[in-house]
Amino acid sequence: MKLLTLVVVFSAALLSAPAPAAPAREVAAASAEAAPVLVPAEEWRRMADAAQRPPLFASELERTARSVRKAMQAGIHVPVPKDPGGGATHEQHKRNYLAIWGAGSLYRLTGDRAYADYVRDMLLAYARLYPTLGKHPASGTQIPGRLFWQVLNDSVWLVYAIQGYDAIRDTLSAQDRQTIDNDVFRRMAQFLSAGSPDNFELIHNHATWAVAGVGMTGYVLRDRDLVDKSLLGLHKDGKAGFLRQIDLLFSPDGYYEEGPYYQRYALQPFVIFAAAIERNDPQRKIFEYKDGVLLKAVDAVVQSSYAGLLFPINDALPDKGLDSEEIIAGIDITYARTHDAHLLSIAHEQNRVLLTPDGFEVAQAVAAGKAQPFAFRSVLLRDGPDGTRGGLAILREGGAADQSLVMKNTMQGMGHGHFDRLNWLFYDNGRNVIADYGSARFLNVEAKSGGIYLPENKSWAKQTVAHNTLVVDEKSQFGADWKKGENLAPTRLRFAQENGAQLTGATMVGAWPGVVFERTLALLDLGDGNLPVVIDLLHARSDAAARFDLPLHFNGQIITQGFTAHRYLAERPVMGTHDGYQHLWVDSASDVADEPRYLSWLLGNRFYTYRFGASVPTRAYLVESGANDPKFNLRHEPALIVRADGAHDVRFFGVLEPHGKYDGTAENVSGANSRIRAIEHLRGSDADVIVLHLARGGTVALAIADEAQATQTHRVAAGAEVYEWQGASARLERGTAASAKEPGAGQ
Amino acid sequence: MKLLTLVVVFSAALLSAPAPAAPAREVAAASAEAAPVLVPAEEWRRMADAAQRPPLFASELERTARSVRKAMQAGIHVPVPKDPGGGATHEQHKRNYLAIWGAGSLYRLTGDRAYADYVRDMLLAYARLYPTLGKHPASGTQIPGRLFWQVLNDSVWLVYAIQGYDAIRDTLSAQDRQTIDNDVFRRMAQFLSAGSPDNFELIHNHATWAVAGVGMTGYVLRDRDLVDKSLLGLHKDGKAGFLRQIDLLFSPDGYYEEGPYYQRYALQPFVIFAAAIERNDPQRKIFEYKDGVLLKAVDAVVQSSYAGLLFPINDALPDKGLDSEEIIAGIDITYARTHDAHLLSIAHEQNRVLLTPDGFEVAQAVAAGKAQPFAFRSVLLRDGPDGTRGGLAILREGGAADQSLVMKNTMQGMGHGHFDRLNWLFYDNGRNVIADYGSARFLNVEAKSGGIYLPENKSWAKQTVAHNTLVVDEKSQFGADWKKGENLAPTRLRFAQENGAQLTGATMVGAWPGVVFERTLALLDLGDGNLPVVIDLLHARSDAAARFDLPLHFNGQIITQGFTAHRYLAERPVMGTHDGYQHLWVDSASDVADEPRYLSWLLGNRFYTYRFGASVPTRAYLVESGANDPKFNLRHEPALIVRADGAHDVRFFGVLEPHGKYDGTAENVSGANSRIRAIEHLRGSDADVIVLHLARGGTVALAIADEAQATQTHRVAAGAEVYEWQGASARLERGTAASAKEPGAGQ
Repeated sequence: MKLLTLVVVFSAALLSAPAPAAPAREVAAASAEAAPVLVPAEEWRRMADAAQRPPLFASELERTARSVRKAMQAGIHVPVPKDPGGGATHEQHKRNYLAIWGAGSLYRLTGDRAYADYVRDMLLAYARLYPTLGKHPASGTQIPGRLFWQVLNDSVWLVYAIQGYDAIRDTLSAQDRQTIDNDVFRRMAQFLSAGSPDNFELIHNHATWAVAGVGMTGYVLRDRDLVDKSLLGLHKDGKAGFLRQIDLLFSPDGYYEEGPYYQRYALQPFVIFAAAIERNDPQRKIFEYKDGVLLKAVDAVVQSSYAGLLFPINDALPDKGLDSEEIIAGIDITYARTHDAHLLSIAHEQNRVLLTPDGFEVAQAVAAGKAQPFAFRSVLLRDGPDGTRGGLAILREGGAADQSLVMKNTMQGMGHGHFDRLNWLFYDNGRNVIADYGSARFLNVEAKSGGIYLPENKSWAKQTVAHNTLVVDEKSQFGADWKKGENLAPTRLRFAQENGAQLTGATMVGAWPGVVFERTLALLDLGDGNLPVVIDLLHARSDAAARFDLPLHFNGQIITQGFTAHRYLAERPVMGTHDGYQHLWVDSASDVADEPRYLSWLLGNRFYTYRFGASVPTRAYLVESGANDPKFNLRHEPALIVRADGAHDVRFFGVLEPHGKYDGTAENVSGANSRIRAIEHLRGSDADVIVLHLARGGTVALAIADEAQATQTHRVAAGAEVYEWQGASARLERGTAASAKEPGAGQ
Repeated sequence: MKLLTLVVVFSAALLSAPAPAAPAREVAAASAEAAPVLVPAEEWRRMADAAQRPPLFASELERTARSVRKAMQAGIHVPVPKDPGGGATHEQHKRNYLAIWGAGSLYRLTGDRAYADYVRDMLLAYARLYPTLGKHPASGTQIPGRLFWQVLNDSVWLVYAIQGYDAIRDTLSAQDRQTIDNDVFRRMAQFLSAGSPDNFELIHNHATWAVAGVGMTGYVLRDRDLVDKSLLGLHKDGKAGFLRQIDLLFSPDGYYEEGPYYQRYALQPFVIFAAAIERNDPQRKIFEYKDGVLLKAVDAVVQSSYAGLLFPINDALPDKGLDSEEIIAGIDITYARTHDAHLLSIAHEQNRVLLTPDGFEVAQAVAAGKAQPFAFRSVLLRDGPDGTRGGLAILREGGAADQSLVMKNTMQGMGHGHFDRLNWLFYDNGRNVIADYGSARFLNVEAKSGGIYLPENKSWAKQTVAHNTLVVDEKSQFGADWKKGENLAPTRLRFAQENGAQLTGATMVGAWPGVVFERTLALLDLGDGNLPVVIDLLHARSDAAARFDLPLHFNGQIITQGFTAHRYLAERPVMGTHDGYQHLWVDSASDVADEPRYLSWLLGNRFYTYRFGASVPTRAYLVESGANDPKFNLRHEPALIVRADGAHDVRFFGVLEPHGKYDGTAENVSGANSRIRAIEHLRGSDADVIVLHLARGGTVALAIADEAQATQTHRVAAGAEVYEWQGASARLERGTAASAKEPGAGQ
């Protein structure tokens, strides 16, 4: 074996910082048993030796050095575990794994032995503590860890720390190495695998963190048994473990069944462990596994975002974005394999990279100006291991900050799933116009139930009425039982782009006994060179006469309540008693009527007019979340609820129109009036037509056949109006003098 | 006289745009009577000839060219006035004056005669329309205009249009010039001066727009009579007019009595007209008038801002910022006279300049890298023509995005003033933490009461309870009668920066019969190298036993209600019936108690803990605005109200502490716990001491003598605790082991 010599390279920034505690010196000769395996020594050396570090990598190195040096100054603190999430011991153990990880990289990239010694001393402290630990004292209903209240955090500790350890392991005396190998990493890997089978054998992101930590520990400790268990499950039969997780957790399109928020979180152990597998078991061709689904998953999570933030479906924190550490890892690892230049614009926005060869390559490519804008596009992300269990449909128009219509036709998504089949969200003008509450949680804020999911997550955020989809008899889908929800997925009906219209839709059977509902959502061009509108058609049928509610959670200040209603001005009643209705204050309740109504609001500098009607008489309510919230845990957000009582069969239809501009700086307003005069719904024998009567004259209609695969001719007539078309759907424009319109007449 | 020749210069951007309609040609010889007087021909020529235009100026020219060319393509539309603010004819006449103004500059800067001809044709259309007009049909309670529903907009039209006209007047035939001179500008100037004395003679910003328009018209038409009336009033006796407005509307510190929002609006005609006066009547040395107050006013308005937005006191729209056109004019005109490089950073942020020699100079200086960060500082802006009628006190710590504490001790501010004597606002971490509602208005949104002030502006936004100051017996100050409020101003007590503390305060007598109240606000350093806290001490005395309410309008999500209280969970009552209380929903009401309480909340990524107590037992209420709001005109914002019932004399004390960090991306939380363990108020014979017991041990106290000018020694004792100091106030630290603290240990 070769004696490795590391050239010491200090960046200017590092030199200007306080001098490291120990002088750099030659890396000790290392036995084959101790050489780094996650990033080989020669690759570390190549990055350390680079004549010029690309700026993104250099600033990451600087940031890491600042943070690690701060930790080193604070000394080694390895406290006996005591607190739940957000508490002092919790946060200290989190800081420690980040410090171990960072110091390992810094040692390799700067050659400064002080970093390696710090990792050694820290891990020796863990070696003294860890063998003494049992079940964490603050574990509640979670599967308990030892360092942390939930085993998940222990797994995350291992994923980070093993990488730092790998980088410095060849600097240790044989005795220290043995101590740390056995009393920290082997014990922890044992605890997280055979010691916690109820976690390790799950098909769930928590288990992915566990198998990633255990598997990487296997590579570093040269322990094939750990590697095999992590890949194939405790019984090494492939019924659990990493490969099975890939099989079952990702759809063929790379959608992760818990949704984008958890996809982001799960992504990191998947891609980091995959990179370790590729390096150490290249014959597995892990990145080609299941048609390259791990790399598709990175694209899928970026597609599932708007203005840098992930779509907050299921138990998601709405402020989680593409700048999160996990997606940084995903982008870097993917780019190093695909060299897709569109990913570089995301890396550029993230302004961070991994301190690995993959991150180095991304930083070089960004510095070389190779970045291309990410290609946000209309995309259907099928759900389910074989892609047959619904999916997430994303329809886009314009650029990244223009219209995105998201329809959630996915399956339940396990315990973090919401009861929101056929829900939708809408983004426009850089903002979320039709919203999803996300989860009710203040992550790691101890005063808020210790930082975990709040009681209102279950009583409000997960309930159907907290979403933009059907509620029957004021009860949530599947009786709000996620295990029941796991059994049934929506059936996808359509995903089509045609001339001037994009459509998607699905059917859901069995969300309530005897109830079927079907929904089509579309982006429709009005032919005036201006912004498209959203069309919504929802058809519900019930064996028994029922109460059908259709909520719309809109974001903005109401401009006009375009219907008469009783206003609750000086007392504010609550809408219901259960299934989320107990959290709704009622501001306004209309009488029953047949006619379509409208509501308009202002969000940012744009107006939105929502017109809505139904095939049966309905009432309209304006409500706001926040009732029955003893600890002030909820945000107060408005919603419109349309209610049809006592029907067996109802078709709700709606049109959401973005229009106009409010310019507070220039103090002017344009386009405050809707471009639509009235809307109308026509029903034929096998199709619906939604007709928009335009203020400029004429109509634009969207025709939707019941059979989404239909190729025959359809005809819907109402008096003198006759609509005829061929195929599953069509945009039909009449008498709008479209040809006379000014080209490019925008806002 | 000389024959002027204009060299034609097209910027690359202009050349790449559609070719102008007419070829450039020599400017016609102009008589002395027609030569431009607002910007002389040779200065236009110098800018047009510049070998290289500085980028800010070039992009402004491009922006203007785009907008004017769009207007030219749309053709000349001079409709018969019909609509109120925000309506079609209103917006068209606004677009027209901007087009006249822009096209005039473009003609001079590009030499393209098409621009001049467009201005001519537009103004000839006005010459046909204007003589036919009487009182605008949509004027409500406003003083009516002819082109617009309120005369103010007519004045603004004139200020802009006369500048455009001046630029092209020498291109006209004698007949066209006579037609436009007489049938547009002279008529309009007559209407706005002698024809509207109830507006023109006011000491008010509406009159400033009128005198500016009339006076500049006087210069352009060579009509000395108009100039003299605009400077000295209709009777030319100096009892009205521009000079009198400067005398009375600006304090010696440049504060404008209506507050920053209207100061911004008023600023434009002041500085633009002043520039015209300087040019045409240089002997008046107008920018030196009243000790240079016009230029001080520009600094004052920038000081009255945070994160680019003006403090929203009085009838202010909270989204109005330094990027408004009026402040662009103010910065450019001021810089050209003072060459204060700190103004250039504001110009850089505005990213816009005037198309005048002043704007050109600013653009050159920015391009030359001369900009210095604007010096935001602690400043007292005295109010009143002679500076004796209260003032706006601004205490700052750290940089532009750190702490700003604003105390509103100003006088009423006329009809747009709020009933909020001794109100305060607080900014931190880039956000408004303790808020002022501003005005209730959707500017120019026709669906919202035609875009004017909403009924809720009077019933809520102006009322005392909508502010962070004392309310007595649930009645607003001065019986909510602004004319009564005009008579009485607060007395300023202190404005001091000392070691570790900045203080300000004032006394208000007569806001209610028999009531005096006095308040001191301070920024106090806790000596731990971390963020300062706000101290509030308010002492109220009433001849009759009264109900004293002290509201705090905080911004953020409640983390902990640190006191027991009845929670209104399933019904939400209204707090009162009048003076703004009818707009408050009650969420929480405590019993009466003596002990200090606390409330904590999260805003952005920072926690705030507010601790509050009083010298008598109080109740605490948590409320939210939005009740009795039939048209959904109000924003829903939370407040805390502390109530003392039946007392003659009460001292409220409070401490607002910013602390900690919530990092959603890295998913960690630090400093979520307050640095303060408890607060205590001690009263001596002639002074108060507010004592903060710190979590780290020891105390930091703020001692405040009743006499703000006091130099003697004060002593306050409570049991074993004795505080002694010399002077009006002091920061006293004990037993905190401050010397042991880590240097620079920040967040």
